[in-house]
Amino acid sequence: MNYTVDEALIILGNTPSTLRALLHNLPNSWIISNEGGKSWSPFDVIGHLVQGEKKDWILRSEIILSDAESKEFPPFDRFEQEETSKDKNIKNLLDEFETLRIQNLQKLKAFQLNSKKLDATGIHPEFGTVTLRQHLSTWVAHDLGHIAQISRVMAKQYKDECGPWTAYLPILNH
Amino acid sequence: MNYTVDEALIILGNTPSTLRALLHNLPNSWIISNEGGKSWSPFDVIGHLVQGEKKDWILRSEIILSDAESKEFPPFDRFEQEETSKDKNIKNLLDEFETLRIQNLQKLKAFQLNSKKLDATGIHPEFGTVTLRQHLSTWVAHDLGHIAQISRVMAKQYKDECGPWTAYLPILNH
Repeated sequence: MNYTVDEALIILGNTPSTLRALLHNLPNSWIISNEGGKSWSPFDVIGHLVQGEKKDWILRSEIILSDAESKEFPPFDRFEQEETSKDKNIKNLLDEFETLRIQNLQKLKAFQLNSKKLDATGIHPEFGTVTLRQHLSTWVAHDLGHIAQISRVMAKQYKDECGPWTAYLPILNH
Repeated sequence: MNYTVDEALIILGNTPSTLRALLHNLPNSWIISNEGGKSWSPFDVIGHLVQGEKKDWILRSEIILSDAESKEFPPFDRFEQEETSKDKNIKNLLDEFETLRIQNLQKLKAFQLNSKKLDATGIHPEFGTVTLRQHLSTWVAHDLGHIAQISRVMAKQYKDECGPWTAYLPILNH
């Protein structure tokens, strides 16, 4: 499937309500349980998504579309939410994510992207030259990846409880 | 984490609205696209979840809790939705799923389960003896597994569009 702004706007726009529905009314033990070690809980994932709205998707798009001489992206800290989510609860984070997402999708619309603009490039700190189309497609896949991750983290809390089914549910064995 | 009916009711109750939010307003091309070959699209998954409400989770629980001499489960056809979803659209299936789920959670509540009842057993056609606790825990993990699956199937539609990021998004490589 080819990237289109219209379809991306729908999927990206659905993410806040999807996450709210998935986490609705859950006791905090489910919100903060992870897959062991330093892995992420649903709380950590939502904090990471908030940081993406603040420092990744739109910011890097603006760099690509700018007249700046250097189109180098600033690095994105995948662990910054350890600090920024402190003193917040899941409701705060979901509200913040939704507010930022709505603002960012308005910016995405306002770019009035066409094929030529989607082919514009920036410099990723690890990958080198990337196109706006690749960056914006990744925004969509990244959202969906984290929805899947939260579902998996939650499912794994019952791994021991599922008995013989455990071996047959792929989600419990990733 | 140990299975509790109260927490299971929350998670199972969230699934219809989570799926509605995830698929909200999507063009049909996204609803029917799969991971290639005979793999399932979001449409197929919702049809499968409907069949689970009709012929698996509550039905097998009732067998376990019954006074019947034989506690053998009838086999569950994982491909029945190929027939039963025919002539339906995604809205029909999401509505049907929600209606059945609400009814089934009322039945789950009405079982008034306690530790002893959760330890009651039935005979699975492949695994042999399983407890009600294992069966009901699997219902929860199964829901979450299919939410993750739909997210993954959708993400993969942009696999080629993500360019160098493709290698770094685990969701695109399962």
